[in-house]
Amino acid sequence: MQLTGQNYIAGALSAEGADTFFSVDPRDKSSGDLPFHNATRDEVDRAVSAAVSAFDEIRRFPSSKIAEFLDEVAAQIEALGDDLLHTADRETGLGLPRLTGERARTTGQIRSFAALLRDGAYLRAIINSEAPGQPAIKQMQFPLGPAAIFAASNFPFAFAVAGGDSASALAAGCPIVVKAHPGHPATSELFARAISAAVETQGFPAGTFSMLQGSGIDVGGWLVEHDGIEAVGFTGSLRGGRAIHDIAARRPRPIPVYAEMGSVNPVVITQAALAARADEIAEGLVGSVTMGTGQFCTNPGLILLEDSGASRDFIASVSDQMGAAPAGVLLNQAVASGLDSAVSQTAANARIEVLTGGDPAADGDAFGYSNTVMQTSAAAIRADDRLQVEHFGPVTLFVLCDDSADLRATVGALEGNLTATVHAEASELGDIGDLLHQLREKAGRVIWNGFPTGVAVVPAMQHGGPYPATTAPGTTSVGTNAIYRFMRPIAFQNVPDALLPPALQDGNPLGILRLVDGVYTTGVV
Amino acid sequence: MQLTGQNYIAGALSAEGADTFFSVDPRDKSSGDLPFHNATRDEVDRAVSAAVSAFDEIRRFPSSKIAEFLDEVAAQIEALGDDLLHTADRETGLGLPRLTGERARTTGQIRSFAALLRDGAYLRAIINSEAPGQPAIKQMQFPLGPAAIFAASNFPFAFAVAGGDSASALAAGCPIVVKAHPGHPATSELFARAISAAVETQGFPAGTFSMLQGSGIDVGGWLVEHDGIEAVGFTGSLRGGRAIHDIAARRPRPIPVYAEMGSVNPVVITQAALAARADEIAEGLVGSVTMGTGQFCTNPGLILLEDSGASRDFIASVSDQMGAAPAGVLLNQAVASGLDSAVSQTAANARIEVLTGGDPAADGDAFGYSNTVMQTSAAAIRADDRLQVEHFGPVTLFVLCDDSADLRATVGALEGNLTATVHAEASELGDIGDLLHQLREKAGRVIWNGFPTGVAVVPAMQHGGPYPATTAPGTTSVGTNAIYRFMRPIAFQNVPDALLPPALQDGNPLGILRLVDGVYTTGVV
Repeated sequence: MQLTGQNYIAGALSAEGADTFFSVDPRDKSSGDLPFHNATRDEVDRAVSAAVSAFDEIRRFPSSKIAEFLDEVAAQIEALGDDLLHTADRETGLGLPRLTGERARTTGQIRSFAALLRDGAYLRAIINSEAPGQPAIKQMQFPLGPAAIFAASNFPFAFAVAGGDSASALAAGCPIVVKAHPGHPATSELFARAISAAVETQGFPAGTFSMLQGSGIDVGGWLVEHDGIEAVGFTGSLRGGRAIHDIAARRPRPIPVYAEMGSVNPVVITQAALAARADEIAEGLVGSVTMGTGQFCTNPGLILLEDSGASRDFIASVSDQMGAAPAGVLLNQAVASGLDSAVSQTAANARIEVLTGGDPAADGDAFGYSNTVMQTSAAAIRADDRLQVEHFGPVTLFVLCDDSADLRATVGALEGNLTATVHAEASELGDIGDLLHQLREKAGRVIWNGFPTGVAVVPAMQHGGPYPATTAPGTTSVGTNAIYRFMRPIAFQNVPDALLPPALQDGNPLGILRLVDGVYTTGVV
Repeated sequence: MQLTGQNYIAGALSAEGADTFFSVDPRDKSSGDLPFHNATRDEVDRAVSAAVSAFDEIRRFPSSKIAEFLDEVAAQIEALGDDLLHTADRETGLGLPRLTGERARTTGQIRSFAALLRDGAYLRAIINSEAPGQPAIKQMQFPLGPAAIFAASNFPFAFAVAGGDSASALAAGCPIVVKAHPGHPATSELFARAISAAVETQGFPAGTFSMLQGSGIDVGGWLVEHDGIEAVGFTGSLRGGRAIHDIAARRPRPIPVYAEMGSVNPVVITQAALAARADEIAEGLVGSVTMGTGQFCTNPGLILLEDSGASRDFIASVSDQMGAAPAGVLLNQAVASGLDSAVSQTAANARIEVLTGGDPAADGDAFGYSNTVMQTSAAAIRADDRLQVEHFGPVTLFVLCDDSADLRATVGALEGNLTATVHAEASELGDIGDLLHQLREKAGRVIWNGFPTGVAVVPAMQHGGPYPATTAPGTTSVGTNAIYRFMRPIAFQNVPDALLPPALQDGNPLGILRLVDGVYTTGVV
């Protein structure tokens, strides 16, 4: 498919800026020929203004119409065909099998939002009938308004232009202005084309969707500062997410920022678990750390064990396997240099021992980094928060604890994480509960005898956690509850049925689940 | 009851600071004899540290135990007897009838959270069973951790030490450190005593509750900056709420701030409504503006009408009634001087006409302000955002619009509000819907043919709205959904039943409503 290198602003191509950048193949660092145009401040303004206008129309649409639109977005993505996979593979080096799976996940999650809208319970309709001294009050969830979405580099489909943040904001009924990730501009353009086609086919206002290219920080800053933006979804680094959080907080009118900024995803392995299945855990751990060249926000980056011969044998085995595993390709220059810098800084700590890797060894001309295993003590971790920094790549850090109390103290000193994992045995259930629930205070998801990579897209999923994992611990960026980041409740007092949205009308014409005078029911009032 | 003037820190009295202040009777500006001690930084630290320790215990408590505690808090408040009413009346001038009602509301909302906890559906348990290629994922809501609560001046019971913010945080399972409002320190101490007694009686850890006195901004700043605090609830002024929002956003580890900062609560009155019932609306409006000397965050402060003879007659009638109504007592020096300053600044605008009032006329020696009516044009409002400032007191501003389009343009230029009201006739239903839903975008609650003062404490209530009404448009500070400000979801992956909280166990021992594999059910998995 012919690419343009332009921005997609409310259905029109635009390339007003002189600054351009190129798509880079991470396998050989070669640049493409097509210049991609950084959006200008005027283009940002145009995209947001169109989103504001579009919102005035979309907010009147029934959920069913938005559901049809989402289904069409999924269909348009599939219609891009294998060109999408090859384009993304050239830009990310992630490989066709992974990208094929990620495409299915991406269209699947878009369709799951369509299903959510059709079910209707997501509106959280609550009705309190009129009573003596009390008016009738009826509330449900409504869209917040135009949202700015920042795409991630490591999931060019599932957390990018048509990823979970975009899907949940659109499902909520919010127009979106997406800041594409400069690591995969061609892939982004394909998605922009697919969503724009769905906008047109479904008769949505053109401002429902815009996509802006930008290789620096300006475009994102202009976008978040813009008074027309009501909320921000972001998936990326702590530095990037914090910067956006700070810009939004300083606005004359602050807005919510939902930034998912990665994490070290602590894993605790008990001695009993090692005794029972050290080899199995080692194999699983190596797979989880190296999968996708370690470029997952749920990568297990901090492994806590009590010190013992078995633990040391285990670490040696993981280290050997990591050293022997082929080095993968990193996504781009920024990831490669960021990883090198992060590991170098950690390794500079005198209490850190590098067991294997620790250098930017690459496969041929590719962006890469050696599979790396480091080791330190619990005391070292507790003494220096910087050792809890995320190493975004195939890197993990073992923490040897003197004993169970030392381990528990270290868990108590952990920062916020997306996940926390325990490997233990059934025989330990009596003792392990307290550790598990101590870990839960540090994470959004607690995993038992598994690995944190692989985030099931189901309603019960929680992909979030206390800062620095996210800026909004009460929210998730995976699963259907992600929609509530872009909604807010509005109550109606004594408003006649004819003026209420169908979801709040006495006769419940949509037949949805509502909380009516204290009872959950699909019935009428 | 003998008061101490001290801070309540984890069950112990503390007065380490030399700075003190006094309770003032707003009816005669006389000071009490008892010095109240501003908390010191060490005392703030002690309160938060105790809250952190308490949380480690409380987070293991079942909902039923927290429900019993809440019921005991309500009972302890009632046990304070009429001394509470007289103390609050002396400090606020609100009068015994209002305070008697507010006490019932306060204990009622505390008990409504107890009922919510016993019902269990509030945990929002979601279960996705294991399936091919997909682990079992189970999530529910958990407490965020220690919360800082800032009490308001205008509701010394319902939005203060044991008010809705405190009740919802405690119900969530969060220890609280309350910054008392300096306008009613003696009342605050009585509530502190009641909650402390409940903490002791129910065997809760002492750090569950602390109350700090403070007449300046230091205590609140130290509290919000403290690393042990995980969330902030605030009810008060825009200036105060924004300052706290900014402090929290600048923390090394930002935390959510739920600030309810008041609003002008626009009211649109159609010509048909005026034709049908001008007198009734005028009477209701005057009552709503002057009730509680206008010191409600839902006070109707901006009234939009199309210009006409009927509108001008209506305004004249409201102005006459306002001028004739007795001046009320304002809460304290800060409210009185703040109101004088706000009205003076508005009246200084050349396009503002003061129809009645506009001066700090008081009843004898009391803090007070004349009942004030101002008038301006829609163009003036659109030209200067400062005319949308809240005048916290018995003040309202009429906005005459040239025609329906001018009115709609002005609605479009409104800032965020807690409420928006429409007075219209059934005969207009066809036309009025669009206006009503345009107004909804500007508010948390839309009222039909009523007045915004009076906030029903029911699950469907939404007391919140876009900034500057609040800093968190997705949340409410009235109604049981207020609990979610202090909770976050945590998911468990493949965790054995025996290690899960009862609410997530397969057998559903609590018998609560859960979303199990897509179906809402109280059944087993």
